[in-house]
Amino acid sequence: MNHESKRFDVTCIGNAIVDVLAQADDELLRRHGLPKGAMNLIDAETAERLYAIMGPGIEASGGSAGNTASGIAMMGGRVAYIGKVADDQLGQVFTHDIRAAGVTYTTAPLRGGLPTARSLIFVTPDAQRTMQTFLGACTQLGPEDVNMDDIASSQVVYLEGYLWDMDRAKTAMRDAAIKAQAEGAKVSLTLSDAFCVARFRDEFLDLAERYVDILFANESEICSLFETASFEAAAAAVRGRCEVAALTRSEKGSLVLTPDEQHTVPAAPVERVVDTTGAGDLYAAGFLHGLTHGKGLAACARLGSLCAAEVISHVGARPETKLQELATRARLL
Amino acid sequence: MNHESKRFDVTCIGNAIVDVLAQADDELLRRHGLPKGAMNLIDAETAERLYAIMGPGIEASGGSAGNTASGIAMMGGRVAYIGKVADDQLGQVFTHDIRAAGVTYTTAPLRGGLPTARSLIFVTPDAQRTMQTFLGACTQLGPEDVNMDDIASSQVVYLEGYLWDMDRAKTAMRDAAIKAQAEGAKVSLTLSDAFCVARFRDEFLDLAERYVDILFANESEICSLFETASFEAAAAAVRGRCEVAALTRSEKGSLVLTPDEQHTVPAAPVERVVDTTGAGDLYAAGFLHGLTHGKGLAACARLGSLCAAEVISHVGARPETKLQELATRARLL
Repeated sequence: MNHESKRFDVTCIGNAIVDVLAQADDELLRRHGLPKGAMNLIDAETAERLYAIMGPGIEASGGSAGNTASGIAMMGGRVAYIGKVADDQLGQVFTHDIRAAGVTYTTAPLRGGLPTARSLIFVTPDAQRTMQTFLGACTQLGPEDVNMDDIASSQVVYLEGYLWDMDRAKTAMRDAAIKAQAEGAKVSLTLSDAFCVARFRDEFLDLAERYVDILFANESEICSLFETASFEAAAAAVRGRCEVAALTRSEKGSLVLTPDEQHTVPAAPVERVVDTTGAGDLYAAGFLHGLTHGKGLAACARLGSLCAAEVISHVGARPETKLQELATRARLL
Repeated sequence: MNHESKRFDVTCIGNAIVDVLAQADDELLRRHGLPKGAMNLIDAETAERLYAIMGPGIEASGGSAGNTASGIAMMGGRVAYIGKVADDQLGQVFTHDIRAAGVTYTTAPLRGGLPTARSLIFVTPDAQRTMQTFLGACTQLGPEDVNMDDIASSQVVYLEGYLWDMDRAKTAMRDAAIKAQAEGAKVSLTLSDAFCVARFRDEFLDLAERYVDILFANESEICSLFETASFEAAAAAVRGRCEVAALTRSEKGSLVLTPDEQHTVPAAPVERVVDTTGAGDLYAAGFLHGLTHGKGLAACARLGSLCAAEVISHVGARPETKLQELATRARLL
């Protein structure tokens, strides 16, 4: 792709969320019936109840596509983000953090209604994260929040699967995908979560065939999409449905598929995996940054692995290191 | 001390603050005239201006005495905390975190006025922290917030020097100290910050002589108190002014002085110092927990060093590890 002719390399659309991260043991997850490794949507009352049983936490900006956008900015990419916060303290935190990372973020905050979304993230000793998300202001994202000029002037429009849980956001996504396609921008989708895929399987399949150029999924998500227990079967099924499928497999690395190419790329080494929150989001960041800077698909996957490795080595879903320097030292940029 | 006869081992009184921690380089501190390593008080407008130049951050409950209280609870101690938040999102975060650590916290939040205090903490690559604090709701702490029954039923009442910046809080502190003394509780004071000492030198000296049994200070604070550049001179000057003086010296460990005893205790080893925020607060936590559990002064200092070592090995001012297990493994409990 030609990275000079458009204003943004990537525009990301997603749920604008502040994460509340705390350590937890498996027993606590079991006792409260929290499905390990998944993302569940909860109402305000449940959020309050679960927060009360959670240990001391830290707050950090999150949201899948927000993490990806921050990662791209920290690689030196030109990136915009669309997502809805409220005009409250957590909304200010989210807005500050994404702008401070270098992302263009101008979505109008929701005034006087629901609070900014938060995700209660229970991090177990095995570094897995279990997410319970109260969507709050995110539920009010609609087509009016998508600046079509920004979509038209992006190389890639990146959509978060989680947004399919809300009808108006879904409309906004479809509008953005149609506009992107018309303007010659690539459309990218992340499946987000296996349960999310189960809720919207047919819509995701339809979307993938009609609009999606670059699909991101992990093993359980792609298996859920094709209702199979076999990763190989799922990989065979997705091949050719969209231009590029980038399938992540945790410590086994990733597999990139096009109709003509296939690349198996190892995971980047990590001294100690602390918290896997954001791993997939940062893989997408590295991959898309490579793609919008003329790299081959294998190099894109390696950049993705490098970014994912950084974010799982500490608590929180956004990079703490200058990713651009990291990538340059690894001779990937 | 006999730890069974009173309801609380320690009651801590301080500014209830949520920390906003971000990495920064020395150049940024210089450019904005931020005195490295110090704590400055700022107004709402300055807080907004400085937040805008700050990188992406994480939010974590803080406040010097709040950190100490959390540390004591995480050692297994019975501890209460008094400090003022607002009825806003950051106030909820503070309240949740301190209670989740196991601290009894019942101070009524401020309604409809100033927001919860926040401290913008710039962490430089040398792990030093530079704090810019907007006190917000903390300025409304007054004598009515101090539950005298709790004071009477504590072995130790721990006061934060930072509170001297506010007249009504100062009155609350004095009331608490007088009550503690009358009820046979020990009074402990931390000098908090060298600039804070400079602002209230005479009051702190008077307080130390009349009420304080256990004084905590680091090198620059104790030197500031006695207006000397020599740590040895300051140590000689403080000796005998209060029952116990525990003087911390970063990587050089700590010196504990009484009229009859003197203990030099090394710092506990740390693999990598990441962020020194909370080091002094956690030293006090370990020390006071030892003291209220019948340990000798040298053992108290070693417990303090152990807790300080934990908190400087990660970002944030409160322990992430089960301190009680840590201390048991080190055979200090």
